[in-house]
Amino acid sequence: MDPRVREHAEIIVDHSTEVEPGDNVVVSAPPAAEDLTLALCEAVGERGGFPFHVSFRMDKTRAAFLGSVDPDALDVPDHELALAEAADVWIHARAHENVSEMSRVPGETMTAFRRVHSSVREEILDTTWVLTQYPAPADAQNAEMSTEEYEEFVWSAIGKDWAAQREHQQQMVEILDAGDEVHVVSGDTTDLTMSVEDHVTINDHGKNNLPAGEVFTAPVVDSVEGEVLFDMPLVHEGHVVEDAYLRFEGGEVVEHGATKNEDVLSDILNTDEGARRVGELGIGMNRDIDRFTYNTLFDEKMGDTVHLAVGKAYDDCLPEGESGNDSATHVDMIVDMSEDSFIEVDGEIVQRNGTFKFEEGFEG
Amino acid sequence: MDPRVREHAEIIVDHSTEVEPGDNVVVSAPPAAEDLTLALCEAVGERGGFPFHVSFRMDKTRAAFLGSVDPDALDVPDHELALAEAADVWIHARAHENVSEMSRVPGETMTAFRRVHSSVREEILDTTWVLTQYPAPADAQNAEMSTEEYEEFVWSAIGKDWAAQREHQQQMVEILDAGDEVHVVSGDTTDLTMSVEDHVTINDHGKNNLPAGEVFTAPVVDSVEGEVLFDMPLVHEGHVVEDAYLRFEGGEVVEHGATKNEDVLSDILNTDEGARRVGELGIGMNRDIDRFTYNTLFDEKMGDTVHLAVGKAYDDCLPEGESGNDSATHVDMIVDMSEDSFIEVDGEIVQRNGTFKFEEGFEG
Repeated sequence: MDPRVREHAEIIVDHSTEVEPGDNVVVSAPPAAEDLTLALCEAVGERGGFPFHVSFRMDKTRAAFLGSVDPDALDVPDHELALAEAADVWIHARAHENVSEMSRVPGETMTAFRRVHSSVREEILDTTWVLTQYPAPADAQNAEMSTEEYEEFVWSAIGKDWAAQREHQQQMVEILDAGDEVHVVSGDTTDLTMSVEDHVTINDHGKNNLPAGEVFTAPVVDSVEGEVLFDMPLVHEGHVVEDAYLRFEGGEVVEHGATKNEDVLSDILNTDEGARRVGELGIGMNRDIDRFTYNTLFDEKMGDTVHLAVGKAYDDCLPEGESGNDSATHVDMIVDMSEDSFIEVDGEIVQRNGTFKFEEGFEG
Repeated sequence: MDPRVREHAEIIVDHSTEVEPGDNVVVSAPPAAEDLTLALCEAVGERGGFPFHVSFRMDKTRAAFLGSVDPDALDVPDHELALAEAADVWIHARAHENVSEMSRVPGETMTAFRRVHSSVREEILDTTWVLTQYPAPADAQNAEMSTEEYEEFVWSAIGKDWAAQREHQQQMVEILDAGDEVHVVSGDTTDLTMSVEDHVTINDHGKNNLPAGEVFTAPVVDSVEGEVLFDMPLVHEGHVVEDAYLRFEGGEVVEHGATKNEDVLSDILNTDEGARRVGELGIGMNRDIDRFTYNTLFDEKMGDTVHLAVGKAYDDCLPEGESGNDSATHVDMIVDMSEDSFIEVDGEIVQRNGTFKFEEGFEG
């Protein structure tokens, strides 16, 4: 086994999820991530946890099921729900044999599935969870890289000094936490305002995502106004949506479009009412992720990018006792901020063309 | 996909487990059974059930965990238990990349695991469950057959006319149900008596095992007396025990031995108190299984054989309200009855040299 696989497993178990004796751990991973699955089962056992290996949520077996099911017959899976309720730690390791496997599933089935599966998703979010990526050949292909190159890319992005990264990101957290109105402008296609007043900004330093490297919050749901063109491709369950466009009024999507796979975007927005509202504003800050790889887990962390997610807001971003936008889905979409772009907080420019005001070379 | 895989999945879903709309189905299978896993997820979905795919109970991931864990730290896995409690149907599909994978796990760890895992096992036995085999190359190798030959062997044994087989077996069920004392003699190495008075004999025609093809009951636990040499190899978690020998007094094993891997047999018997007592007497009746393949699921169904299991008795074999031998384990061991052998029930010979009294060629 590649020693980097065992290091990856150790970061997951010790840094991300801090597995302790007696923990009931679910390892959710497909066959393409077999080495990491084995390393995780070993590492969890060594720390006194009990690993139970299940299929990854969106793998070939799920595609086989959803490709043949009547969407109207779908109901909440009580067995999967019971597993999630009883789990202390949930480790999702993505890896593909074919990244387009889910494309055989009709959009309306996916929408119905997301709806019945949202209770399971919520229970998993209540565990100590992490989502990570194993560098399988099909994922390398999807990133337009050789497998060796991609392995290096993935394990470099994951094997960072997370304490130093956390400190760097904390500067942006403090700006957003103190701020109220956020204004994001890119070229003449994106001009968006929203309030983040009293909301909490999260410093993503390797707890829930590996790689990590972003700061994010939930905007005040009705405050989002303006238009945005996501000039980075949106990759969703095997489909690539290009140039997704959204226009917001009073926090709600009132117009949308795309130059490719617009129907996939429509299906996302039609999941439920909350899918037409913003659940997350995120700012990518991981400069080791220096290229777009058609994988949101990495792409949304890229330096020089901002992303919005339609759908469910993370509770941690909200003031105590307040609940945010609710939805069965959560889909991130990315704007390139490297040129002709800025972020303003309460009228002050805090990032221009990708460089933050607390970084060298910033030009206010 | 080989069309025989889809036929196999259909027998499992329609004959063995009768999946119905709304059923919460667990598909427990390793990567080596991927085609069958996909066919099962499709078939379950088509019938309105919800399949959830998890690792097979004894696959590589479990070996990785159990190979590294401190046996004293093992505790009941609440998450796996919750899944089993909430499942309606549990489909186990065996398949190996290497049948010796579990041999890296120390015997005392296996014993500790069986003990903490017995509550999960009991919950699974409370579902509508089936155990089957997918003909993976390593399993063919273990059977000393080419993969093509082995596929034919497995799918012929599974694709039988189960209604006709059931009828044939019912004749032996009636003999045992009406009988009291069973006497099994083979050569000068096996001479065993036990009572089956008031106990129930099960006709195994493809509900819990695929292939099926045996009748079995639980003996009155204290009634087992005499000695038995299991001249068919005992294959247990990657180890082959040869010429396992047991001597019983008052239902309990008072002496045991083997010519190879005796320590594996000792570990089995030391699991707990119930592991030294008999939980099952079975008679193999599937004449399509015409060779020993180092796989109990098939070997115990062979014509011309009898098997005993030490450990847990199946509740279905006991009179209403009575509970049988309890144990965290259940291990079958097989006696060749093809030569110099007979089975007597209440003094009447009902099988000689493998031929039953209701079959042609029987010589009382």
